[in-house]
Order: sequence, then C-alpha cells, then structure tokens
Amino acid sequence: MEKLEALKRLFPGKVDLSESERLRHGKDEGYPLARPVLAVVYPESVEDVQKALQWAREWEVAVIPFGAGTSLEGHLYPTREAISLDLSRMNRLLEVRPEDFLCVVEPGLTRKALNEALKGTGLFFPVDPGADASLGGMAATGASGTTTVRYGGMRQNVLALQVVLAGGEVLELGRPVRKTSSGYDLKDLFIGSEGTLGIITRLTLRLHPLPEHVHTLRVFFPGVEEAVEASYRVMATGLPVARLELLDELAMRALNRYLGAGFPERPALFLEFHASTEEALEAESTLALELMREAGALSVEAAKTEEERKRQWEARHQAYWALVHLYPGHHFVITDVAVPLSRLAEMVRYAQGLMAEMGLAGNILGHVGDGNFHTLVPVLPEAYPKAEAYAERLVKRALELGGTCTAEHGVGLRKKKFLPKEHGNALEWMRKIKALLDPEGLLNPGKVLDISPSPGYS
Amino acid sequence: MEKLEALKRLFPGKVDLSESERLRHGKDEGYPLARPVLAVVYPESVEDVQKALQWAREWEVAVIPFGAGTSLEGHLYPTREAISLDLSRMNRLLEVRPEDFLCVVEPGLTRKALNEALKGTGLFFPVDPGADASLGGMAATGASGTTTVRYGGMRQNVLALQVVLAGGEVLELGRPVRKTSSGYDLKDLFIGSEGTLGIITRLTLRLHPLPEHVHTLRVFFPGVEEAVEASYRVMATGLPVARLELLDELAMRALNRYLGAGFPERPALFLEFHASTEEALEAESTLALELMREAGALSVEAAKTEEERKRQWEARHQAYWALVHLYPGHHFVITDVAVPLSRLAEMVRYAQGLMAEMGLAGNILGHVGDGNFHTLVPVLPEAYPKAEAYAERLVKRALELGGTCTAEHGVGLRKKKFLPKEHGNALEWMRKIKALLDPEGLLNPGKVLDISPSPGYS
Ligand SMILES: Cc1cc2nc3c(=O)[nH]c(=O)nc-3n(C[C@H](O)[C@H](O)[C@H](O)COP(=O)(O)OP(=O)(O)OC[C@H]3O[C@@H](n4cnc5c(N)ncnc54)[C@H](O)[C@@H]3O)c2cc1C
Ligand SMILES: Cc1cc2nc3c(=O)[nH]c(=O)nc-3n(C[C@H](O)[C@H](O)[C@H](O)COP(=O)(O)OP(=O)(O)OC[C@H]3O[C@@H](n4cnc5c(N)ncnc54)[C@H](O)[C@@H]3O)c2cc1C
Repeated sequence: MEKLEALKRLFPGKVDLSESERLRHGKDEGYPLARPVLAVVYPESVEDVQKALQWAREWEVAVIPFGAGTSLEGHLYPTREAISLDLSRMNRLLEVRPEDFLCVVEPGLTRKALNEALKGTGLFFPVDPGADASLGGMAATGASGTTTVRYGGMRQNVLALQVVLAGGEVLELGRPVRKTSSGYDLKDLFIGSEGTLGIITRLTLRLHPLPEHVHTLRVFFPGVEEAVEASYRVMATGLPVARLELLDELAMRALNRYLGAGFPERPALFLEFHASTEEALEAESTLALELMREAGALSVEAAKTEEERKRQWEARHQAYWALVHLYPGHHFVITDVAVPLSRLAEMVRYAQGLMAEMGLAGNILGHVGDGNFHTLVPVLPEAYPKAEAYAERLVKRALELGGTCTAEHGVGLRKKKFLPKEHGNALEWMRKIKALLDPEGLLNPGKVLDISPSPGYS
Repeated sequence: MEKLEALKRLFPGKVDLSESERLRHGKDEGYPLARPVLAVVYPESVEDVQKALQWAREWEVAVIPFGAGTSLEGHLYPTREAISLDLSRMNRLLEVRPEDFLCVVEPGLTRKALNEALKGTGLFFPVDPGADASLGGMAATGASGTTTVRYGGMRQNVLALQVVLAGGEVLELGRPVRKTSSGYDLKDLFIGSEGTLGIITRLTLRLHPLPEHVHTLRVFFPGVEEAVEASYRVMATGLPVARLELLDELAMRALNRYLGAGFPERPALFLEFHASTEEALEAESTLALELMREAGALSVEAAKTEEERKRQWEARHQAYWALVHLYPGHHFVITDVAVPLSRLAEMVRYAQGLMAEMGLAGNILGHVGDGNFHTLVPVLPEAYPKAEAYAERLVKRALELGGTCTAEHGVGLRKKKFLPKEHGNALEWMRKIKALLDPEGLLNPGKVLDISPSPGYS
C-alpha cells in the first residue's frame, strides 16, 4: 500500500507491520474483541508524533495512542482504519526536582519504573492502578489507585502536560506549581480524554515525601457489609488513612490459590496508615482498629516487616491476575461504578444479589474510601452477554443513586451507552469540544463518544 | 430606554437602577477603576437567569455575574454596556447530606453562612478566602485559602456544578462522587472561568469531618527567609499540616494597630494541625516545632482555647482590612504569584528587594505551603503606576522560575497581559473555547482574555 510505504519512509526502524504486533495493539486487557491496526509506529520524540499525525491527516487514517495496553473498556480497539502510536520508546525520566516535589517524564514511562528511579530521593509517585501502566496512559484515562483516598488520583497529581493536537500543534498546559487560577483549565480537559483530544507527550508530576512511618493491616469480617460499614466509619472520623481496600471472600480465595498464600478466606479490608511520627501512626491505627472492632471485625493481621507489607499490596494488585489464572479461556467483565459514600454498602449488596440472581459469580474489590468498587466476573464467551447485562444493570442502579458509570477505568467503547444518562445534554457539549480539537475525527475515533456515524472499517 | 423598560417588565421587584447600586456592581475590592453597570438584576431562580440571558441576547447587552464582589483583578468592571446579575438572592443551602460528606448550595450563599448552617453536622467546608465570598464566586475564580495545603481549594472540593450557558441551556457537570473518569471534564473548565463561560447556578460541595483535635500555633522568626525555610521543612516531612501561613513584620504591625492586638512584630508562621487523636496531634506539632527551631524560630505561642484559636485566624483574615484602615485614600496593589516550592524563599527575597529598590512598602502574606504569597502594596493614586510596575516585574520573575501570575485571585482584567507568556499558544485555544461556549461574547466580556477588539463603552 502506498500509504504504508510512505509511513516506512518517514519512520525508518520505527514501524512494525507484523501481524502479531498489529493485533496486540488492537486490543486491551479487558475488551473481548481485538482487531489488528494498520501499523504500529514507535515515535521517539515530539517531532515524531507530529510527523505521524501529519501522515495520518494526509492519508485520512486514524491514530490510536498506546501506552502499556492495560486499559479495560475497548480503549485500543480500532473502530476504523488506524495506526497505533506506541509511546513505549518515549519512556525517559527527563528531570527529577526533589526540592520542588516534582518530576518531568515522557508518557511511555511506567509507574513502577518511575518509582524505581525515584529510590533514594525520599519521594514517590502515589498513583498505582493494579497494572504497571504508562504514565501517559494513566493521565489519558484519569487513573487512580489504592492510595487515592489520601494522595488523590492522576487529576490531582499531574501539574502540567505537553500535548500534541490532531493538527500537529504542541501545547503546554499547566505550570509546575501547586495551585493556579490562570486562565481556563485545559489540562484537566485532556486528563481522562482517552487519546481522543490529543497525544500526551510529556507530564510534570507531583511527588510526595515517602512516609517516615507506615502501618499495614488486614482486617477480616463476617460479611462484606460489615467491612464496608467499617470503612465508612474510618472515613467519617477524618482519619488520614492512606489505603482502604475491600476484598471479598471470593477474591481472597482466588489469591490464596494463585499465590499459594494462607489468607483467611473472609471479606477483608486492607489498610495502610502513613505518618511522620511513630506516635501519630500508633494512635491513628489504634483508633482505626477500634472502629473496625465496633463494626464487627473478626480478626486482624498486621504486616510486621517491609517485606510483608510489600507482599500484602502485591497480593492486592494480583487479584485480577489470580482470576485470569483460575479461569482460563474466560472473558472478564469488570465493573467500575462509584456512588456517594453512604450508598456504598447498599450498592455492594445490590451487586451481590444481582449476580446471585443472574447465576454469575464475581469477585468484589473496592477502593472503598472513594465509594468505588469493582466486580470481576469471569464468563465463558457464550455467557458474555449475560455478564454485560449484569454490568448494565449495575451501572443503571449506580446512576440512580447519583453515582458514575466509571470511577477510574474510563469510557472506551463499552461505557459510551451510559453517557447520555449520566451527562444529559452536557454530552452534546463534549462532542463540540471534540469537534473543535479534532475536527477530522482522527484521534482514537469512537472512544468516549461518537461525533458522527462511523465510516466503518475497510 | 426601551431595553430597560423591557428588563423591568421581565423582572418586577428584581431590578435596581439606582446610581449607587449600579456603581457598586461595576467595581470589585481591588481594581482601582469603577464604572456603573446599566442595571442590576437579582435572579431568584435558574429560570430568572435564563430569562436575563435571553434579554441580554436580544438587546446585545453583556452580562456580568456578581457574587459577593470581593474579587481583586477587575473581574466586575464593565468593559462595555452590561448588566450585573447579582446572585445574592439565590443563597439557599438546598441540601446537606452529612452521610455523603456533601451539600448542595445555590451560588449566592457565602462560605461563612454555609459553615454556620453546617454547625451540628460535624462537618465543614474548608475553602476560606480572606473575604466572606460567595460559593459561586469562589468556584468562578478557582479560590483557595488557608486550609488548601491540607484540604485543597475549590477545584478539589466542587463535585458538581449546574451552569447556564450564554444561549440559555442548562448543563449539569460532574456527579456527587469522590472520583469519576466519565467523559470530558467540563466541570473544571468552568471552575476558574470568572463568569466568562457560563453562570453557575448550583454547586455540589465536598464536606470534611471537623477535626477532633486541633492545635494552633504562632511561631516568630528573625527574618522572613527563616520563616519560609521553616515552612519548607514542614512540607518536606510530609506532615499533614492543615494551615501554614506566613505574615511578615509589617503585616504583624498593621494587625496590632488595627486590632489592638499584642503580637510580636516579627515575621511569623501561623500553623494549625488537625488530627483524629490527641496523641497524633501532639506528636505532629512537636515534630513541627522541632523543625521550626532548627530553622531559627525565636519564639512560639500556642492558642490554648477555641476562642484564642478563632482570634488568631480572624486576625489572619483581617490582614487586608488592617491595611485598608491604616492607609485611607490609598489604592492597593495585591500580587498573587506562586512558584515551585524550592524557589519561594528566593521569590520572597526578590519581592522585598524590589519593593525597597522602588521605594514601595508592602506587606507580605503567604499561603506558603502552596508556594503562594501576596504582597499588599498601599499607594496613593499618583504612585499607582509604580506599584503596577512592581507587580509586573514580580510576575515576570515568577514566570521565569516556572511560576504562575495568579495562584488564586484569578485573571480579571489586570493579569490578562501575562497570559501570552504563561500559556503560549494554549491561550489561542482558550479563545476558541470561549468562542464555542459564548459566541456572541456576552458573558463578562474582556475578562480572562479578549476574543476580539472590545467595541468600547457607550
Ligand atoms: C489488573 C489491572 C488492574 C487495574 N487497576 C486499575 C486501577 O486500580 N485504577 C485504574 O485507574 N485503572 C486500573 N486498571 C486499568 C488501566 O491500568 C488504566 O486505565 C491505565 O491508566 C491504562 O494505562 P496504559 O498505559 O496501559 O494505557 P493504554 O491501555 O495503553 O491506553 C489507555 C487509553 O489512553 C490512551 N493513551 C495512552 N497513552 C496516551 C498518551 N500518551 N496520550 C494520549 N492518550 C494516550 C489510549 O489511546 C487509550 O485510550 C487496571 C487494569 C488491569 C489490567
Ligand atoms: C480581604 C480579601 C482577602 C482575600 N483572600 C483571598 C484568598 O485567600 N484566596 C482567594 O482565592 N481569594 C481571596 N480573595 C479574593 C476573592 O475573595 C475571591 O476571588 C472570591 O472567590 C470572590 O468571590 P465573590 O463571591 O466575591 O465573587 P465576585 O467578586 O462577585 O466575582 C468574582 C468573579 O466570579 C464571577 N462570578 C461570581 N459569581 C458567579 C456565578 N455564580 N457564576 C459565574 N460567575 C460568577 C464574576 O463575574 C467575577 O468574574 C480575597 C479578597 C479580599 C478582599
């Protein structure tokens, strides 16, 4: 094809046309369908990104930015002829400024590689989705994680972005300061825009002092409701809890099998406290334990060593892979609603009841301090529509309670159908913003919203 | 005038044409110029707001939303024929949902009235600009305050907004949840948009548990630099300090004179710690004091009673009025830069040196945990250009250091000239957003940015 020849000429050594890579880039971690992209391009600079966009405009081919490919909602599936712009070669840590509690990174750097590189600075970057995602992808999906209850998600921790627009223009959004009221907040428009408004080519991130003292606990409960109630009481005291994660008995069982661990197979809260002094830590975790006991906790295990602490959170982050391992050949429907805090127990109960009613068996995992929980439902391909129907009913209920269809995973393809209900006529204005920034509809078309009927795939 | 007759017919009992009110609404608290608006309209409902906008479109008259009038940068000055839409009658607390840590308010409610009404719920709304601003105005300027270092500013504490666009359409932006990745973040586009993109008619606000234990301190230093250094050390430990405010010796002197107080006339840090347990509080404030001493603190005073605590923060909030009182007949130029945290000491030193060099005497007040400080420079009208020149040089230096021209007061008219330097070509995209949302340029024209040459005032 003439356009592919042109692409190869433009990017010697930076284009991959192999079937396997084209297919790997046309899928994500959670969407059941995959389809090869036309080509994979590996830009190594902002200029490369601009050149790729110019080529795309010329040949009217869409562009899908690709970080680490760990998204879940069809974010990377090509709805029409598209190249994948894989940013993994733009993965440098450009600058660390410990004295300003910030660093500057390229988008392909992953969160784990960043924290590895920060060792010795006394600082860390807190946002930790389960997967080792790229920081560009995390900004693009508005990701958050286990520490968001204390440190915030990407929105709170991205100080500035460099983005390249569809037309090739490079914008610098935000400043390396902790607050600003200067002009319209375009930075936050790009955070969570899922590659549909521009390509993120650089991020300035806020770093936090590593806590001097850390206390990590696992608390087990007779039922999920008691665990949610306990988490609610912790939030209500204003305790500065750093992590507050729910895992139901099914999740604990899966972890035991996958990791050969010996956790009690009971609904659990995994907690962590961070403090600058030993006494504060002591007092805060003691108070938390009291609240847990009052809410019906059965038993408590404290992580005594750094090693054990690490293992606990590794286990939490393995919860999805444990399921994948236990259910070979299955698809996974992963829900991601958040509701107002007081409705969380009711919402979790609803999810459990609905799964039972529909004959589904899903694990429940939750960032419960944020009112957000996931159900991970493994199904064989033929039962997929049933799991989707479950997810749909769950979202509808969450929206009725004032919640959101997605707290952190984003919209992709799968959640588009919920947006009219969630946003009303504001959705029309999102469309206008899309049309303003990407008038030809070249950037990750069909994700988040549709601007016009898709021309289909050839 | 025919259009005024039409306006009065539309809004019986809700229009004020008196010279004094028209003039009061054509000025703010900090801009030296004032000019009467055409009329003041007091909407009492969203429908009133829509009607007012319809009238404005029909007669091609601009609309300037008005909250409490405490802004500082020319936000309310009519650059052309305009009505003021005074939202003070829309000041109801619509709903408090303590169990969800949120409330829903109309835009005209002030922050003090809100916290008064929240008494007994165990919750509070933390954002506290010095003035008793309206919550709509605070969202519109992206305000923050003394507790922002711990609880965030308006951006972090507004969960959802209802806005009316220039064309009359009503949008609901955001959801009453702690996090969401659902669609483009239009809510944050309106926060800080200074009435130029839409009228905020309802806000859903995040509330926080009142801290069980509070410790309030005043620490005095030989010089401002030692005080800034001490604040830096507090931030570097990750101590969860709730307030961290700098007042220089001139500010302390002004407060003593105005309030008849007996504070030492030395550069001071006013600090506060919030904790859920006595022990945590004790440990954290002890550590903070150690850091202060190491950085050269001379003396410490602790507020022992609730009463004394209140008095300390009242005093901090009176700093501006103290000056106004001491300098009758003066104008005040108030700067508002923020810089990366490590450059704050240098920036404060630069401000002091520059004022000395230019023969100006200004107070320094700072939200130093956020890297943000103000200089309040009283000048007689004839010296105003000199103070403006000082402010301009200060901003230039801040921008060179990676800072922002405004951390919290906003752009208004006065800071527009700095935006090209701060935002580069992103400013052009802000213009496009403005043109998209307000194509006729009816909403607070000339503020934040110019879309086209102003047609002047007739
Ligand atoms: C086991 C597991 C656990 C997870 N846990 C969490 C969790 O706790 N919290 C959470 O938020 N998410 C979680 N996720 C989802 C996923 O990790 C996040 O959405 C993550 O932010 C995706 O990053 P990525 O680098 O993999 O992006 P990708 O999957 O490569 O891309 C995601 C989207 O961002 C766009 N994009 C990527 N890079 C850029 C760029 N530079 N510029 C513009 N657009 C770009 C893509 O086009 C796509 O639309 C989890 C996923 C898995 C598999
Ligand atoms: C003594 C003093 C101390 C201050 N300290 C601080 C401080 O610490 N932090 C800080 O951030 N600010 C501070 N300020 C500035 C000021 O209080 C804030 O900018 C405040 O947010 C303005 O609110 P307001 O209700 O007075 O708004 P106004 O002054 O009435 O309006 C401000 C802007 O918002 C627009 N607006 C108002 N209401 C709406 C609405 N409902 N919808 C859309 N647009 C609207 C107006 O058109 C205008 O552009 C201080 C001011 C003074 C006088």
